[in-house]
Amino acid sequence: MRQIEIIGIGTGNPEHLTVQAINAMNRADVIFIPTKGAEKDGLAGIRREICGRYLTAGNTAIVEFAVPKRLTAGQTYLQSVGEWHAALADVYVSLIETLPQPGVGAFLVWGDPGLYDSTIRILDRARSLKSVDFDFTVIPGITSIQALTASHRIPLNLLGKPVEITTGRRLAASGNQADSTVVMLDGELAFSKIDDSEAEIFWGAYLGTPDEITHAGRLSDVASDIVRSRAEARARHGWIMDIYLLRKGHDFDDL
Amino acid sequence: MRQIEIIGIGTGNPEHLTVQAINAMNRADVIFIPTKGAEKDGLAGIRREICGRYLTAGNTAIVEFAVPKRLTAGQTYLQSVGEWHAALADVYVSLIETLPQPGVGAFLVWGDPGLYDSTIRILDRARSLKSVDFDFTVIPGITSIQALTASHRIPLNLLGKPVEITTGRRLAASGNQADSTVVMLDGELAFSKIDDSEAEIFWGAYLGTPDEITHAGRLSDVASDIVRSRAEARARHGWIMDIYLLRKGHDFDDL
Repeated sequence: MRQIEIIGIGTGNPEHLTVQAINAMNRADVIFIPTKGAEKDGLAGIRREICGRYLTAGNTAIVEFAVPKRLTAGQTYLQSVGEWHAALADVYVSLIETLPQPGVGAFLVWGDPGLYDSTIRILDRARSLKSVDFDFTVIPGITSIQALTASHRIPLNLLGKPVEITTGRRLAASGNQADSTVVMLDGELAFSKIDDSEAEIFWGAYLGTPDEITHAGRLSDVASDIVRSRAEARARHGWIMDIYLLRKGHDFDDL
Repeated sequence: MRQIEIIGIGTGNPEHLTVQAINAMNRADVIFIPTKGAEKDGLAGIRREICGRYLTAGNTAIVEFAVPKRLTAGQTYLQSVGEWHAALADVYVSLIETLPQPGVGAFLVWGDPGLYDSTIRILDRARSLKSVDFDFTVIPGITSIQALTASHRIPLNLLGKPVEITTGRRLAASGNQADSTVVMLDGELAFSKIDDSEAEIFWGAYLGTPDEITHAGRLSDVASDIVRSRAEARARHGWIMDIYLLRKGHDFDDL
């Protein structure tokens, strides 16, 4: 049987790799690397650095594959994602068919394969097609949430309090409700539209890389700095990955 | 100036260590190891294994220290935690005073230092005492959330949907509201009191260790199996660390 390793590689610092991830990379006959186009050259470079630094098995092939574009015209978000996943599942099947039998393939996933990533979903879908027989395992990785709180040297949660992880779109729709809200995938700058004099923000971009930028402070004081800093960095790099934590209150407020 | 490294070491699998964590351990002059009493001997053993396997600098001292007990009688939860943190901050100050100057000390934290752990809070408090001058950095680690979803080979979130991370106590108080709810620190078995025919549960204990146990299924079908399995494992090991994800719905339900 063919085996796929879905390997979390952290947020861009090659030292985020776990020993488990490095060992899984070295078990692979082939590492499949997506090519997403010029705008993410910075990310492709980090992936190459990770392979160059940690592959010691000596016989690991690296195979690049083109990621189909997600078509959005005339479809809802979920329809569009559904079609895109179906197309990707076909691509994954054709990649897995090239593996020796038995053989091991690997996908390197930014952050952790469980958090706002669809590699697991797409491989589940590829298996359900039953055109190629394979199994897969998941290797956890450092998420941008942990890179964010580590960089700011703060706990994610207030003492004994819950944390919400959400998207920019949902934050814009629901407002800032929780004690601690992590916002991922916020291209709409939902934070800049929140009017909450209590809220603090801990923001970071390119976390873990030499280009890392962070801002922290009262949201009303620093929101415009973040908007400016984000636009400038995005223009310079051609892409941005950022994340932030909104927080209300302090650990011993209820004492 | 003295420097403290707060190092996330993952959930019990020595291979959860990141390269960054291993390098930080090897920069330390002293690694401080808490002794919590016999019930957690299994954890102390894993910590010793991690030090034995990854310390290559050759001159790293390992210093054990006693963790004060948290007193709960006649106090609210927050009062009790506040006093306990104050006592721990004094202990940390006395440990840091033993470091060479300049010198590096390290604390090894289960999971990630940002998630339901107070090492960062206590070191902030120790610094504010101003009796010993030091700075600290935080090294992220694999959390039990990632170990859980990796073991079950599932994404944490439904497509584009939020995730709530909470405690057993809060789940018991608020019920099962979110699409995806991660429950940590649930000694009260709050899941077993939830009557929700839609909910699925993904449960795990001792995640990442050779003793790992997992259960998954419809909550109403498997809750009693989990309660039994948990009680049995806890009796056998003398302690348990477990976590679970409650989920309602599926990725493309809203299509």
